[in-house]
Amino acid sequence: MAYFENVGKIQFEGKGSDNPFAYKHYNPQEKVLGKTMEEHLRFAVAYWHTFTGTGADPFGVGTAIRSWDKFDGMDRAKARVEANFEFLEKTGIDYYCFHDVDIAPEGDTLQETHKNLDTIVAMLKEFQKSTGKKLLWNTANMFTNPRYVFGAATTCNADVYAHAAAQVKKMLEVGKELGAENYVFWGGREGYETLLNTDMALELDNLARFYHMAIEYAKEIGFNAQFLIEPKPKEPTKHQYDFDAATTIAFLQKYGLKDHFKLNLEANHATLAGHTFEHELRVAAINDMLGSIDANQGDLLLGWDTDEFPTDLYSVTLTMYEILKAGGFKTGGINFDAKVRRGSFEPEDLFLAHIAGVDTFAWGLKAAAKIIEERVLDSVIEERYASFREGIGKEIVEGKATLKSLEAYALQNKPIVNRSGRQERIKLVLNEIIYSV
Amino acid sequence: MAYFENVGKIQFEGKGSDNPFAYKHYNPQEKVLGKTMEEHLRFAVAYWHTFTGTGADPFGVGTAIRSWDKFDGMDRAKARVEANFEFLEKTGIDYYCFHDVDIAPEGDTLQETHKNLDTIVAMLKEFQKSTGKKLLWNTANMFTNPRYVFGAATTCNADVYAHAAAQVKKMLEVGKELGAENYVFWGGREGYETLLNTDMALELDNLARFYHMAIEYAKEIGFNAQFLIEPKPKEPTKHQYDFDAATTIAFLQKYGLKDHFKLNLEANHATLAGHTFEHELRVAAINDMLGSIDANQGDLLLGWDTDEFPTDLYSVTLTMYEILKAGGFKTGGINFDAKVRRGSFEPEDLFLAHIAGVDTFAWGLKAAAKIIEERVLDSVIEERYASFREGIGKEIVEGKATLKSLEAYALQNKPIVNRSGRQERIKLVLNEIIYSV
Amino acid sequence: MAYFENVGKIQFEGKGSDNPFAYKHYNPQEKVLGKTMEEHLRFAVAYWHTFTGTGADPFGVGTAIRSWDKFDGMDRAKARVEANFEFLEKTGIDYYCFHDVDIAPEGDTLQETHKNLDTIVAMLKEFQKSTGKKLLWNTANMFTNPRYVFGAATTCNADVYAHAAAQVKKMLEVGKELGAENYVFWGGREGYETLLNTDMALELDNLARFYHMAIEYAKEIGFNAQFLIEPKPKEPTKHQYDFDAATTIAFLQKYGLKDHFKLNLEANHATLAGHTFEHELRVAAINDMLGSIDANQGDLLLGWDTDEFPTDLYSVTLTMYEILKAGGFKTGGINFDAKVRRGSFEPEDLFLAHIAGVDTFAWGLKAAAKIIEERVLDSVIEERYASFREGIGKEIVEGKATLKSLEAYALQNKPIVNRSGRQERIKLVLNEIIYSV
Amino acid sequence: MAYFENVGKIQFEGKGSDNPFAYKHYNPQEKVLGKTMEEHLRFAVAYWHTFTGTGADPFGVGTAIRSWDKFDGMDRAKARVEANFEFLEKTGIDYYCFHDVDIAPEGDTLQETHKNLDTIVAMLKEFQKSTGKKLLWNTANMFTNPRYVFGAATTCNADVYAHAAAQVKKMLEVGKELGAENYVFWGGREGYETLLNTDMALELDNLARFYHMAIEYAKEIGFNAQFLIEPKPKEPTKHQYDFDAATTIAFLQKYGLKDHFKLNLEANHATLAGHTFEHELRVAAINDMLGSIDANQGDLLLGWDTDEFPTDLYSVTLTMYEILKAGGFKTGGINFDAKVRRGSFEPEDLFLAHIAGVDTFAWGLKAAAKIIEERVLDSVIEERYASFREGIGKEIVEGKATLKSLEAYALQNKPIVNRSGRQERIKLVLNEIIYSV
Repeated sequence: MAYFENVGKIQFEGKGSDNPFAYKHYNPQEKVLGKTMEEHLRFAVAYWHTFTGTGADPFGVGTAIRSWDKFDGMDRAKARVEANFEFLEKTGIDYYCFHDVDIAPEGDTLQETHKNLDTIVAMLKEFQKSTGKKLLWNTANMFTNPRYVFGAATTCNADVYAHAAAQVKKMLEVGKELGAENYVFWGGREGYETLLNTDMALELDNLARFYHMAIEYAKEIGFNAQFLIEPKPKEPTKHQYDFDAATTIAFLQKYGLKDHFKLNLEANHATLAGHTFEHELRVAAINDMLGSIDANQGDLLLGWDTDEFPTDLYSVTLTMYEILKAGGFKTGGINFDAKVRRGSFEPEDLFLAHIAGVDTFAWGLKAAAKIIEERVLDSVIEERYASFREGIGKEIVEGKATLKSLEAYALQNKPIVNRSGRQERIKLVLNEIIYSV
Repeated sequence: MAYFENVGKIQFEGKGSDNPFAYKHYNPQEKVLGKTMEEHLRFAVAYWHTFTGTGADPFGVGTAIRSWDKFDGMDRAKARVEANFEFLEKTGIDYYCFHDVDIAPEGDTLQETHKNLDTIVAMLKEFQKSTGKKLLWNTANMFTNPRYVFGAATTCNADVYAHAAAQVKKMLEVGKELGAENYVFWGGREGYETLLNTDMALELDNLARFYHMAIEYAKEIGFNAQFLIEPKPKEPTKHQYDFDAATTIAFLQKYGLKDHFKLNLEANHATLAGHTFEHELRVAAINDMLGSIDANQGDLLLGWDTDEFPTDLYSVTLTMYEILKAGGFKTGGINFDAKVRRGSFEPEDLFLAHIAGVDTFAWGLKAAAKIIEERVLDSVIEERYASFREGIGKEIVEGKATLKSLEAYALQNKPIVNRSGRQERIKLVLNEIIYSV
Repeated sequence: MAYFENVGKIQFEGKGSDNPFAYKHYNPQEKVLGKTMEEHLRFAVAYWHTFTGTGADPFGVGTAIRSWDKFDGMDRAKARVEANFEFLEKTGIDYYCFHDVDIAPEGDTLQETHKNLDTIVAMLKEFQKSTGKKLLWNTANMFTNPRYVFGAATTCNADVYAHAAAQVKKMLEVGKELGAENYVFWGGREGYETLLNTDMALELDNLARFYHMAIEYAKEIGFNAQFLIEPKPKEPTKHQYDFDAATTIAFLQKYGLKDHFKLNLEANHATLAGHTFEHELRVAAINDMLGSIDANQGDLLLGWDTDEFPTDLYSVTLTMYEILKAGGFKTGGINFDAKVRRGSFEPEDLFLAHIAGVDTFAWGLKAAAKIIEERVLDSVIEERYASFREGIGKEIVEGKATLKSLEAYALQNKPIVNRSGRQERIKLVLNEIIYSV
Repeated sequence: MAYFENVGKIQFEGKGSDNPFAYKHYNPQEKVLGKTMEEHLRFAVAYWHTFTGTGADPFGVGTAIRSWDKFDGMDRAKARVEANFEFLEKTGIDYYCFHDVDIAPEGDTLQETHKNLDTIVAMLKEFQKSTGKKLLWNTANMFTNPRYVFGAATTCNADVYAHAAAQVKKMLEVGKELGAENYVFWGGREGYETLLNTDMALELDNLARFYHMAIEYAKEIGFNAQFLIEPKPKEPTKHQYDFDAATTIAFLQKYGLKDHFKLNLEANHATLAGHTFEHELRVAAINDMLGSIDANQGDLLLGWDTDEFPTDLYSVTLTMYEILKAGGFKTGGINFDAKVRRGSFEPEDLFLAHIAGVDTFAWGLKAAAKIIEERVLDSVIEERYASFREGIGKEIVEGKATLKSLEAYALQNKPIVNRSGRQERIKLVLNEIIYSV
């Protein structure tokens, strides 16, 4: 394995270090709130950005310098497998994630595609065994191929739907084979370009049917991974059905699917939907739907999914706060669904970018833990909502109040007094906490 | 009644007319798809914009010239009632809508507020009787008063919650008294400014409790109006809980409330949420939740609720198309939740703006009817989704397919052929249809 | 020539026609305001979208079915030339536009690239001669190749700058050879990803130097085309230097370049900058900088350059209004910088989409002409600003007023009276005009 | 003086302190890069938000508890003056800023308004003398009064223009009387709602005439303050003429005004224009137009000017970096154009919010100083642009290159090599620096 010759194993060196190829915050065995950092964080590398990505954008071809690009076809696919495990070893990251087309080229027929997958999957399995690295989740790419121009499970063409079904069937089998802890659905083309030619009702019914079939088949083959849906509001389509956490939950409730899924939430998808990431996490948490996250960050002045590596300590601290408050990850983890900028095209940038993400999350974990341990926000909440723990508030919460009883109370009540929400103060405190860990 | 001395009754004069105070498209008795235009359109005037609004904005005080402003307190409230019915008479609009604080000033105590309301409600009832005008819906304003700074049904202060309950109780009684066909909840402050000091789970639970109490009480007093929730994503709060149609449906489903509500959708709220209005209408329709609409339009280059009178024929045609396809309004209607621009401060502008809205909707109705009669879009849809009416597609729709059966089909299937979606062509056809009615 | 066998020559058939492959509004020889429609509109086909585009997007590979794709390399380049002229013939469009890399593949060396260009340019020249079709403008693509990852004339690498200079030199020569009426600069990568590693001052100075060199060289070779700069605020870079019309004018003024350039404005670029297209046109017009336009439309709910074919009659009517009021095009024209949707992948869609654009512009031209002939807006303006044509207003405009004289006037003036701006009424009138032509 | 009885003088207590009413980062006399922190930062309090603001928003009336609200009219105006100086004393902030209408109520006539102003100005002068506090800048509010519905210097009504001139004349006199170091123009209504009724060319010409008159008059009375223009893209109008730094510079250049003005840039205005604040600062700096700043922050998920107190260390550090690199403030300073949230309505919140802003800027100053001292970014820039300091790059910069010489160079040059821009690494380094000071 020699795809990243210039970079050695990334170690924890602590805050003083000026070695760019070292962790300054991520100390895997360090205990935080009773668990090790690596137990909390469960990082994963996204195969598509790191091993398949080229740096191409709508106005330019790829820029990335990748040593496996000297190979072609299945040879390149095999080289990428080796590079993946070398990268996991050197960064100390334990998990990876992939789409089918990331790991093996599509063949001219479905049969050939399956054969290519089988070859690579066997290789992945071998590497997993020898390295101890694991598959956080896998998924089927049903958006790149032209056949999916109008969607996969929400296509207007039944033949396409059948093809998508075959692809998912295969990937459920692959997930089982590789011991994937989750299986993700991201509906890249499950949406519409214009309502003028779209039968939304049929498309959503078909989507629900598709999920029911997948649940059936996973059960049939004994694949027990957690199913995850990844919301995104737009891009590539004008409107994607899984717009955000709430929309996805509405869909799952309607079609009797809620118990079979949790959400895989992505920071940049949240911002494209007009939400903070912590909002999406909270919505999922209070619906018991928080599964896993795609860690990245967007540029709020840009209107597309920039998928930058996460370095914003405010966002990451609040992300970890929501996750810790929700009980931490079960099967889920932190998948770096992030790509190095087109201008960060050297192989070393893959390491530097992941170090930036890992260190930022480790830092955020410690800050979030401190917020919890010192009850910084809990005490604010407790005080603000105190009136719902006694008297008329308690009656409301216990379901004993009626409009009549509340009117009676209001009619004789003294003038209402509210207390300041102290938002500016809390934000300054947040700065101090992030600083102090 | 002489608040609008310079303007007479607005009549239909047809396309050739150059009288700005005439309808050129809205002919109330004209039949479209078997019903009269007035049966289809059920227009309503929004009391707050038309009789209470001043033209103030965050950077300037009111500009509107309103003859009732020579009065104060209850005298002004009574003058507004007279102006309302004069306006309804002259425009030929049959419905109106209001919040409690629009029609009567709040007193120093809840008792006094109720008394003020009673006086005005009696007057409204009298006017309704003598003119035949009707109340499309009423609602309680639980966002203007400082007590609601942190919300009403989602406040952190139980005393505020109780006050809100008293307000809604009163307005349910008022709705019954005036024969309102619907009752609306718009949660102007039901959301949060920052998650840092917010207990979202408790707030949403309390909101659900509030709705259940309202349902109980309406039942108790025999108020049979359709309950409506009006989604809006943000403004005034950073994040409002009823973000959009899908989010609201998710909430209603979760708390067992779905059967008791429909949605009151607003065009500008849709755009603030990142959706077209027709998208929101479609989402509501396929969930059997389309109740009523707030007709206006936003400026997509601006990030706040501009509430302009609707004049965009594309949007209005598609709005009417969605409504007609959903079976038309039952209890709902088209409420002009729109305000004249701050620079349109003369009383005549109130008429000109409503004429613009009414004529645009009448025009859109005719265009939508033509799209339906000529099956312009239906034929596109029928053809595009034909594959789901036979063979493997039919099996999918009928729930007979499995991943296995679909894979078997896909493995032996010939190369997939998609057909163009013809989006550009359809858009040109839309121009032609709007033109031709 | 047989790349579009299924489509014949597009003729004007007028409003009644239901032939999708006919013009219903564009009658080239019809007179509008004293000139023929084709003299007014000067349409051009964008080579890159129509002959080089594939329908690929960031989440999927190309979908377009193009008969020239059976060829490779220079053979494909030649086939595209033939297809271009066949398309111009059949649509009756007189102009086309291209980047260097659209017409001929880059070679391994600059020498080879130049050779490829020479071959194709000779062919284009021959075709122009035999068909009478003309080149509206050409330009150099300095954003696709990886070398331009950090910009071309604003790169941090002097070697890249030199390469860009060579490319522009060649394209100036090509422009002269083919009689281009304009030469366009669009700085696809002239901007930055992050200020943290950017020397903006040096980059802008270098950009100005680049333009001065281009002016010099064009003069030296006697290439008299109008130089145009095309503003765009972002995408592909986070921030592009030519953000919008005003920003570009500021730059040109600062560096003594203003007299040598005009602007090539694009509708979707305007909306990405937060402006209406008519705003950008007006800004250019009042600075005598309106050169040419890229006709398309964006989706204001999406944050990237969707480059849709223009079908919005509101926008197109106001576009033509601004252009007519500015005196119409001199060397400029209407370049369809628009791509068929990824789902409109059949060859026929290229025709249907251009027909949609052409007919919409013809329609908008007639509506704009009517607005001018009937002085619909001119009379509004004249009346609103009447106070600046006499008395104190006249003194202000003539530069005779001072703060002192104005204060003296204000101190003795009677209460100020403003008149309504009548925005809602004007918007309804606009509907009537658009749909009456 | 007893408007803030519960709060004492805010002192520096350093990082360990848990006193919310103490500075932890702002130590006025501490030296940073050779100057004291107070010399660098030159903080100012915005009279309008802090002493006139009420917490009202478009959906609700004021919530703020302010002890001076027990007074009316001129008595309240006088109480606010006392409160202002008490606040400046207690916070240790040296400057304040105001509009005319903030400090004194408008009278029924211009004469009465001037009289009110004279009374308050005399009082302010006395207080300035006794406390040593100073006026950073003053300005005229030409947007709140209904007369300015269509603008002031860009109105369609000459009488309004004259009134605005009288107002500015007075405020120039006031500025001189109080020793203002700057005079600001923010054109709240200088823009348009719709181009359909707007003569943009005349309006901009008139605006330039207005500025020329102001320059003349300031010269005449010997008022030597720096004139500043504050760009903002929209709100309250749809489009404001001073959209951003570049647009404003374009205007000033065109009308021969550039030497008489600098810019007063505001963070939230930058984001509304689609820019980062550091972008606007850089644009101003490289055009020698950086005058002063309005310190606040927006919410990038909201589309209006939220004017929050600045607490984002990323933005503030880069703000201070740009200011330090531009040579620091001359006459300008850091005006907290920020308002406490509607929910932060207690008097103490005014202190807590300013402490948050002051401490964040002190923190950012230190971080920026460290970036400069350690040449963290300078070394990146130096290395990236090295090729322009020798060989062909040097020729380009020195103006010796031509397209021909560059083509000759390119034709013989070896393959181009770019170096990674290392964006991810730099962002992580930024985290380390911010949190190490």
